[in-house]
Amino acid sequence: MRSLDEHRAATLALAAPLPAIEVPLLDALGLVLAADVTTQAALPRWDNSAMDGYAVRAADVAAAAVDAGVVLRVVGDVAAGSADEPEVAPGTAVRIMTGAPLPPGADAVVPVEQTAVPDAPAGDPAEPQWADGGGAGLVEVRAAVAPGAHVRRAGEDADAGEAVLPAGALVGPTHLAAAASVGRATLVVHRRPRIAVISTGDELVEPGAELRRGQIPDSNSWLLAAAVLDAGAEPLRLGPVADDPAALHRLLVGLDAGEHGTVDGIVTSGGVSVGAFDVVKAALADERGVEFVRVAVQPGKPQGLGRLPGGTPIWTLPGNPVSTHASFEVFVRPAIRRMLGLADVERPRTRVVVGEGWRTPPARAQLMPVRRVPSDEVPADDVRSDDVRSDDVSSDEGGLPRVRRATARGSGSHLVARLPQAHGLAIVPADVDEVRAGDTLEVFWT
Amino acid sequence: MRSLDEHRAATLALAAPLPAIEVPLLDALGLVLAADVTTQAALPRWDNSAMDGYAVRAADVAAAAVDAGVVLRVVGDVAAGSADEPEVAPGTAVRIMTGAPLPPGADAVVPVEQTAVPDAPAGDPAEPQWADGGGAGLVEVRAAVAPGAHVRRAGEDADAGEAVLPAGALVGPTHLAAAASVGRATLVVHRRPRIAVISTGDELVEPGAELRRGQIPDSNSWLLAAAVLDAGAEPLRLGPVADDPAALHRLLVGLDAGEHGTVDGIVTSGGVSVGAFDVVKAALADERGVEFVRVAVQPGKPQGLGRLPGGTPIWTLPGNPVSTHASFEVFVRPAIRRMLGLADVERPRTRVVVGEGWRTPPARAQLMPVRRVPSDEVPADDVRSDDVRSDDVSSDEGGLPRVRRATARGSGSHLVARLPQAHGLAIVPADVDEVRAGDTLEVFWT
Repeated sequence: MRSLDEHRAATLALAAPLPAIEVPLLDALGLVLAADVTTQAALPRWDNSAMDGYAVRAADVAAAAVDAGVVLRVVGDVAAGSADEPEVAPGTAVRIMTGAPLPPGADAVVPVEQTAVPDAPAGDPAEPQWADGGGAGLVEVRAAVAPGAHVRRAGEDADAGEAVLPAGALVGPTHLAAAASVGRATLVVHRRPRIAVISTGDELVEPGAELRRGQIPDSNSWLLAAAVLDAGAEPLRLGPVADDPAALHRLLVGLDAGEHGTVDGIVTSGGVSVGAFDVVKAALADERGVEFVRVAVQPGKPQGLGRLPGGTPIWTLPGNPVSTHASFEVFVRPAIRRMLGLADVERPRTRVVVGEGWRTPPARAQLMPVRRVPSDEVPADDVRSDDVRSDDVSSDEGGLPRVRRATARGSGSHLVARLPQAHGLAIVPADVDEVRAGDTLEVFWT
Repeated sequence: MRSLDEHRAATLALAAPLPAIEVPLLDALGLVLAADVTTQAALPRWDNSAMDGYAVRAADVAAAAVDAGVVLRVVGDVAAGSADEPEVAPGTAVRIMTGAPLPPGADAVVPVEQTAVPDAPAGDPAEPQWADGGGAGLVEVRAAVAPGAHVRRAGEDADAGEAVLPAGALVGPTHLAAAASVGRATLVVHRRPRIAVISTGDELVEPGAELRRGQIPDSNSWLLAAAVLDAGAEPLRLGPVADDPAALHRLLVGLDAGEHGTVDGIVTSGGVSVGAFDVVKAALADERGVEFVRVAVQPGKPQGLGRLPGGTPIWTLPGNPVSTHASFEVFVRPAIRRMLGLADVERPRTRVVVGEGWRTPPARAQLMPVRRVPSDEVPADDVRSDDVRSDDVSSDEGGLPRVRRATARGSGSHLVARLPQAHGLAIVPADVDEVRAGDTLEVFWT
């Protein structure tokens, strides 16, 4: 049998970053930069004011203080967005708003809060008062400022030609802001993968349909489509297909040949075990690029993996929903993340302490859905509330988060209704036969 | 001045969970359940097989062992999805596949791996062989099984009428699987908020446009639109608007009156400080439902907050991009998360240790963009790589994650090109005047 790590390496080897495309800013959110984003010009482009106040010559107000104001004549206005360049001669000032270019002659800005308007009527003392900017007003400066004070220097944020965003970065809101600020209306990113999702089995019907004996609603294609979305890719959900190997083979070959548009990968569930009618194994029996293997992991032992003749990667996962979920997490999600262009394709992991133990299969790793619990929780048969957050992986100082099995009624790989109670999957190494209360394990949060 | 926590409480008070709507499964991803999801029937509905193998009477094979097989006649087949109910009489067995209903008479399942076919030709020893299921075949059972072995009992996963998903749960892939498994094709969730986003300023032009002196590309509306999306809501980006209070007032009143479709909230940036032309303050000066306050936080001191006459909440944030970002994170995002229907509206937080210190403003809390760094990093002037993951909040056992300021060239609130280097915002309490290397702080990861 193949080890968990060997099969993970095999599945990652199928994936490579997809080609680069240019997209509008918002469409790049959640995708990965395929090229550095550089500035054409220095950022900011001009010396500009960091405050609302008055552009001055620092030497003019070197002696200013609260009780010894220096009066300057206000010769003009530079609002944000203004292209005006009123000269600040000795003894004068120019009203300036945050972000406006520093006018010629000025070398510092005095914030409006450090000024007063001579002979102005008393107003709200918390609200600063402005001198008239039309050329006849006076302002009393009540604090000395050093040359350069409250001035943002051209190039302070980035030099011309500098990379402000590196290739490989996952684009978030602040990346869009940085790109926009250097004048970019589009970004070059790796294309979003489009992944076909198929569940198999004669027993499956669409949710909501009437069930006769032996039938169950299909849940795996919804699980996989949502997990593909959650991984950052676009799902093509093809719904449940029947146990007809020839029909399934035609569907897979058609996907591989582009009959359903661009498809960067195919994920199936079910039909890969030792059953007498296992449809995925039968459909792919003659495809030399696909192999069926047993992996030393529970759940998820029977796995299929490979490429169809046209080069499309295919992952055939077992059909028990808990197996499908764990297999997607460890074998498919990292490959999708690599297609997106990410260098680090793994979920965040933490060490946790086990609240209640359980027995594990010998000589196989185990992926156990676990739930974070308060460190003082009394073991209970079952918990249905959702009060502990899956992403809250902090813990008391020094302590590790505490977990127990999410599927407390049992650990069968069919307990799909219990899966939402899990916050992550604990990884029990193959050489561990029993997990005991107080043991520590590694968990990745899902 | 209002404290950070007081203003957070005021902003959350503006938000309530939006009305419930019914949506198809995949559309519910990322939304919050407005009602419990219950099973109509027990789950699973029938006793069924947990393995590929043979349905037997346990008493028939009580003496079976590897070297003492018990031969049974195979009287039928139950594939998954089959409605057949072949009777298992004493001395007989029925082939059964994983998930298929247990036929009458049988009380246990023997996995195919624990059987052999008498007189069958030798095949691949790793592949199990199947007896003919047509009625004439024989199977040799080589292991005793207890009554109930490898049988999934009806109701084992959930009882009829039981809630499998609680109201308030954030819908992820496994929630969709659980809902589908109980036959739900739709889910009842709180409607997704639609949030209008406006940046203000005569200096702003769309990214990509030619800049004349004094102009800069608008980045805040992109930042806010992406942050709204990232928070789980739908942005309505209205782009930069000029410093014209009457025009802005008409736009805001029109949004409030439904002229742009459903709008559940409005976020603006800029024009709320002490400038002589601050457009948002001027536009809303006569709106009694909106107040402008100073909050004891840096960045983000000038804030406006309230409701327009039609009831639409509005948050007016300061316009320096780093202020806009921090203000959205602490004042707007939690409100959007509450509109979504979440009880816990906060980002995950952890304590971190500070690598390099900095001075902070007296008597004001500080929200400092920080970057996670390796614990042995030598302080550097600047780092542009993106090698540390924002969601990797684990740390060495016992140790806390180590951070330093993301905007190492400065801490000015205009350093938008540096923001993507931040993994989170550190919260420096108002009574701290200086952060020293080795201090611990709370960080929320963005």
